[in-house]
Amino acid sequence: MKNFTITGTYTDLYQLTMAQVYYLTGKSNQEAVFDYFYRKNPYEGGYTIFAGLGTLLEVLQDIRFTQEDIEYLKRIGLNTDFAESLADFQFKGTVYSVKEGEVIFPNEPILRLEGSIVEAQIVETLLLNILNFQSLIATKAARIRSVSGDRVLSDFGLRRSQGTGGYHATRAAFIGGFNSTSNVKAAHDFGIPAVGTMAHSFIQSYDDELSAFRDFALNRPDNCILLVDTYDTLKSGVPNAIEVAKEMKARGQRLLAVRLDSGDLAYLSKKVRKMLDDAGFQEVKITASNQLDEWVIKSLDDQGAPIDIFGIGTSLVTGAPDAALDGVYKLSYSNGKPRIKLSENLKKLTLPDKKQVHRVINGDGRFFGADVVLKADEHNPDMMYHPSEPDKSLSLQDMKQEPLLHKVMENGQTVTPYPSLQSIASYCQERLSLLPDEHKRFYYPHVYKVGISETLLKERNELKNQYKK
Amino acid sequence: MKNFTITGTYTDLYQLTMAQVYYLTGKSNQEAVFDYFYRKNPYEGGYTIFAGLGTLLEVLQDIRFTQEDIEYLKRIGLNTDFAESLADFQFKGTVYSVKEGEVIFPNEPILRLEGSIVEAQIVETLLLNILNFQSLIATKAARIRSVSGDRVLSDFGLRRSQGTGGYHATRAAFIGGFNSTSNVKAAHDFGIPAVGTMAHSFIQSYDDELSAFRDFALNRPDNCILLVDTYDTLKSGVPNAIEVAKEMKARGQRLLAVRLDSGDLAYLSKKVRKMLDDAGFQEVKITASNQLDEWVIKSLDDQGAPIDIFGIGTSLVTGAPDAALDGVYKLSYSNGKPRIKLSENLKKLTLPDKKQVHRVINGDGRFFGADVVLKADEHNPDMMYHPSEPDKSLSLQDMKQEPLLHKVMENGQTVTPYPSLQSIASYCQERLSLLPDEHKRFYYPHVYKVGISETLLKERNELKNQYKK
Repeated sequence: MKNFTITGTYTDLYQLTMAQVYYLTGKSNQEAVFDYFYRKNPYEGGYTIFAGLGTLLEVLQDIRFTQEDIEYLKRIGLNTDFAESLADFQFKGTVYSVKEGEVIFPNEPILRLEGSIVEAQIVETLLLNILNFQSLIATKAARIRSVSGDRVLSDFGLRRSQGTGGYHATRAAFIGGFNSTSNVKAAHDFGIPAVGTMAHSFIQSYDDELSAFRDFALNRPDNCILLVDTYDTLKSGVPNAIEVAKEMKARGQRLLAVRLDSGDLAYLSKKVRKMLDDAGFQEVKITASNQLDEWVIKSLDDQGAPIDIFGIGTSLVTGAPDAALDGVYKLSYSNGKPRIKLSENLKKLTLPDKKQVHRVINGDGRFFGADVVLKADEHNPDMMYHPSEPDKSLSLQDMKQEPLLHKVMENGQTVTPYPSLQSIASYCQERLSLLPDEHKRFYYPHVYKVGISETLLKERNELKNQYKK
Repeated sequence: MKNFTITGTYTDLYQLTMAQVYYLTGKSNQEAVFDYFYRKNPYEGGYTIFAGLGTLLEVLQDIRFTQEDIEYLKRIGLNTDFAESLADFQFKGTVYSVKEGEVIFPNEPILRLEGSIVEAQIVETLLLNILNFQSLIATKAARIRSVSGDRVLSDFGLRRSQGTGGYHATRAAFIGGFNSTSNVKAAHDFGIPAVGTMAHSFIQSYDDELSAFRDFALNRPDNCILLVDTYDTLKSGVPNAIEVAKEMKARGQRLLAVRLDSGDLAYLSKKVRKMLDDAGFQEVKITASNQLDEWVIKSLDDQGAPIDIFGIGTSLVTGAPDAALDGVYKLSYSNGKPRIKLSENLKKLTLPDKKQVHRVINGDGRFFGADVVLKADEHNPDMMYHPSEPDKSLSLQDMKQEPLLHKVMENGQTVTPYPSLQSIASYCQERLSLLPDEHKRFYYPHVYKVGISETLLKERNELKNQYKK
């Protein structure tokens, strides 16, 4: 595989065929405003964590069409003048966004992109590709963190991740609350702690398990974690690990942990804890992996399994069982006018115009449980309305409202230094701590209300009636 | 995002900590043999399509550690001499594999990698990452193809794919039987036809739908496909499309298709077909997208929906609902001896030694429904045994056997020019046509038998007894 760089062709062809039409009809610079939003929380959960913004902004600043891209587009039949005009393409738009790591909800604008219709269309695909995936994984990570207390969570997923998608999965997992990763490249590039021990093959390559453990402890004494389930966890693996722990102790070193990777983790972890404790190794930790997710960890915890470190792979990095967040990117304003997309399903009717989102805050500073979508130039609305059942409304009088969309890019340049990944991860946990528990439970979480202001409701209804004619 | 290149750090850290121990104990060049295999067909199906080999061989030929990689490894505590030795790392191993596009089954070796233990471990993660994902997607594509006859299938998935994973999803989808993609970059790099039409935003950006259709037809007359569901499919979209089709006809051009992207596709496609036919546009095709997968397409077909072209996104490129193939990479031989990994579950006991797989072929050249795993130096076995229930056996006497593992790389160099993606895709369909239908059905497919030879069974049992002691 050659170098992989995101250039202008990291898009759907229709973005370019539409752009060609705009170009040939002299509309290339027509102003357009698009909203990024999603319709359904993943995992039947009560919230989503927004992630990927840092990656997106980097791509938007750098994106270009190469000469090879342009020759290819001509070869597959795009208009020559249009294709050649892409040599000068740079993203010069303006982006308002909720902060990366924010707790977000369905049907509210998460990001608003303003630019020429051509640039806004060309970047649609990559924007959705980046934000949908990283938000899916950050949400999965946050759910896993929510049942794990302060135990260590490590991403072990690269081997089962969807191709090179694993790279940004690691970034998103860290935002959602993971501590470390086995993925060396992602650890390096994103500054995440890298962790790693040994595989079954290491032990199999020796004639006996004890020799394998000994060699490992001698040649990798720091962070020594021994995998104890290659032959028989309780009869062979743990006794051999205890033997090596004694040898390490005599050398002034310390066995960090033993790792379980198969069998009944609740049963085995209790047995192993007792064996380690009885041998005087209360400080040696137990790490576990093998098909873990938030449900399994919750169950292990309910059973009192004394596991200190979890290694989580497939379900984390693929966001199983959902595999995708349904985020979309819809035109809300162009050529001087607000725009909507109708639908036979009223729930899919889009919201017109340039918008802002306010989070309603309780007296104690926690989230009240409602966000209101309003026009970008509106002041705090004192009522909000259900977007598809307009007799439902909620008074916001005297409640604190916090604007969620902030300008993060202006004319193609980021406006402030981007926060570190660590501070994004901290922000995520801080915001989650403000979300009432009933929105966080796994079974039938309480629905967080997202309403719209009266002004926006009226504007949308007028437009709808106009198009219905 | 900077350039993304797969270097030696595209791996799990434990591959490097193990390699360090091998290095420091003078075992770096110890011979090792690993098998790649998987345990369960995705989608509760009866087969899997093997994909990703071409990508893997390219990576294996090129992989290096950069100086930056090496400095990072030293910084996170790897031994300095070992880390610096990686500057000379090149993959020099030998690879035997089934052909890309082959129909494969659980618990048989799909690929055998022979090399030094260090190189074999370092490449484990990327091998699993590439083969697991592309095989998952090629299988999904083949299932979708199996219910689609000769209708056109297009990959529309980039916006919902797992980050940059969408790039190789497109490659794998083509192997499994897709015709084209909206993903411009993948189309370019892999030589796959690129397709694209228009989004709702294009129509919304105009004050009325008819003007949008007209501009598009005038400025993109080749492959003109009009999206008809922005406002009202039957009352607005299709009548306007027919109007434009007439104008195009008058100019000697042709409207290729209309596209449905919402609503009940069975109901709408019938209504739309009739409207087009009644207007004299029998040749204008209907293309449909929106949450399609093999089940929905089968249902549309059962209802007689007259759809000619399917655009498929999320479920294709993420392999939903499975999201991952459970492929593993297990040591079977090292330091002059065959090796196994025991397990409390007999089904997870691995097969030792250097192995081959034979496919049993019927008199008519079709697959008999059984593959036999044997030692690499064995001749055609005349019996095969169930791997975990050894009283079950099957006579193979007088049946034709076809070896599936072929040498594809020797000492780090590919042995023959790699086949084109088109010929891999053709091979996949050819092989699927030889697989009896009962293995292809979606509900409770007949289980394809994978057995082992008597010689291999004996060798495994001896090793097991040895380790149990």
